[in-house]
Amino acid sequence: MIYKERIRTSSREVLIDITSIIKNVVKRSNIVSGIAFIYVPHTTCGITINENADPDVKKDIINALANIGIESISFYHLEGNSPAHVKSTIVGSSITVFIENSDLVLGRWQGIMLAEFDGPREREVWIKIIKEL
Amino acid sequence: MIYKERIRTSSREVLIDITSIIKNVVKRSNIVSGIAFIYVPHTTCGITINENADPDVKKDIINALANIGIESISFYHLEGNSPAHVKSTIVGSSITVFIENSDLVLGRWQGIMLAEFDGPREREVWIKIIKEL
Amino acid sequence: MIYKERIRTSSREVLIDITSIIKNVVKRSNIVSGIAFIYVPHTTCGITINENADPDVKKDIINALANIGIESISFYHLEGNSPAHVKSTIVGSSITVFIENSDLVLGRWQGIMLAEFDGPREREVWIKIIKEL
Repeated sequence: MIYKERIRTSSREVLIDITSIIKNVVKRSNIVSGIAFIYVPHTTCGITINENADPDVKKDIINALANIGIESISFYHLEGNSPAHVKSTIVGSSITVFIENSDLVLGRWQGIMLAEFDGPREREVWIKIIKEL
Repeated sequence: MIYKERIRTSSREVLIDITSIIKNVVKRSNIVSGIAFIYVPHTTCGITINENADPDVKKDIINALANIGIESISFYHLEGNSPAHVKSTIVGSSITVFIENSDLVLGRWQGIMLAEFDGPREREVWIKIIKEL
Repeated sequence: MIYKERIRTSSREVLIDITSIIKNVVKRSNIVSGIAFIYVPHTTCGITINENADPDVKKDIINALANIGIESISFYHLEGNSPAHVKSTIVGSSITVFIENSDLVLGRWQGIMLAEFDGPREREVWIKIIKEL
């Protein structure tokens, strides 16, 4: 079973904290102990874990990835969104998070973030949960 | 059980679409619903998911990663392939893809790519498939 | 069950080979065949796989990531460690490694590395092991 969640992104490049959405899926699964696999079915966004305490960190990550030298090179792909494809590969499309006591087990400052690089759009996040035996 | 697939890369830096190879492994596994874990046992290549519709996207990703400022610094490692090691860590060596109805479940534009950064070589891709109970 | 291992990092930015620590966890788990999921619960370090034969590769990766243009931009986050947050997202916080014959199955040159970007600190690495049925 794949849980599919829809997320509306609000600007061209933005990190969106989706921790509460994933926690809700874990609750609905009724799985006490296991692993959540979180996946984005897109090629111009990514999924990552980073600080959710200070919202400035999200802005800094977006700004930094816009400054690593991949905006200005000449691209073959004619849609104009090649930097978004590159960032998708840099950030990655799948992460793994542990479940104990029917909840995600995250580090103190960690949140799960959808990384939008070619919005605004309606995106999907897919989740599969495996029960620990 | 680990499925081991061999892939011959054709140039020094190239993204190679291996989606059909992974789909074939899923078919051979006879697993209807579960998760495929895909892994490269190398330190100068990576595994990623990105667009497989326009082949130019693959070239753009290779070119962009060659322009983030890691080619020209002075390296300690004397084999001359340090940029490839760095790109391997940036892209990553493992991904997770879901299986339903005995097939991979990918987004509309997604393909699975071996990212060669120090070819041409014969590479291996390892796959383990976990059945959903 | 989550295995939690503590690692003391020795400098601000460093890659630390933790392969033997993970191998030891696999041994303690008594699982013969399966998958190890390795996770860092932090937002200024990452987990990666790269060459463990020549220790210079670890230094080259740290130096290269310090040269991709994310040190000098103006950051909003006031703690001064935004580059470490960005590198955490670039390297990633979770990896997957296979287990056969009660041991990790790594490529010939591969080792598992904790990537410290904001040390020295005491860090944790979390491991969950899923048995293959």
